[in-house]
Amino acid sequence: MSDYSEKVCEACQPDADPATKEEINEFLSGNSDWQLIESDAIKKIERTYKFKNFKDALEFTNLVGEVAEVEGHHPQIVTEWGSVLVSWWSHKINNIHLNDLILAARCDQRFRKFQV
Amino acid sequence: MSDYSEKVCEACQPDADPATKEEINEFLSGNSDWQLIESDAIKKIERTYKFKNFKDALEFTNLVGEVAEVEGHHPQIVTEWGSVLVSWWSHKINNIHLNDLILAARCDQRFRKFQV
Repeated sequence: MSDYSEKVCEACQPDADPATKEEINEFLSGNSDWQLIESDAIKKIERTYKFKNFKDALEFTNLVGEVAEVEGHHPQIVTEWGSVLVSWWSHKINNIHLNDLILAARCDQRFRKFQV
Repeated sequence: MSDYSEKVCEACQPDADPATKEEINEFLSGNSDWQLIESDAIKKIERTYKFKNFKDALEFTNLVGEVAEVEGHHPQIVTEWGSVLVSWWSHKINNIHLNDLILAARCDQRFRKFQV
């Protein structure tokens, strides 16, 4: 099983290939809290993280923001009291790129501090 | 025209009255970037704020979080590259409470630093 968080992001160009079905399935079987969805006819992966209050949810939102800024690739983050929904896809290809799997896995790493 | 940002929030109980139609209309006419919506059969007010990058959007998300934490009343915040969508409603009454109008107006105040 690959550790996606350790893979290296590459620049995503408009003609880049999306992640293969095999890559997405491998990611989802190893990171089962993530779901493959289709929204506005675009494939995305999303995960809802749960928290004990708003403060922790917002702190996690900022950690996701750090993950995103490092690679210049940004998710949609829905912050509410007690939950953060993170959705990854690549606007340049309107699909899931390998980078999305990598950054999703890095979000899971940042979540560990909230799991006690 | 009332300045909603200066009004005082009061504890919202499950039997609290929602904001009246007149209050909502007065708010919307004075704060025209906000929209009244209905989602999952619940009335809400929402506004999309635009930013020049992700960093500013995330900074504003944190300012909205501060506004929320002061009153212990929290919106849904959708943070993306270049935009933040804020939705206010009161879970206890599944409707819009006067507090939502007040905190929406306070979000607009926090946005001013990004308007140049």
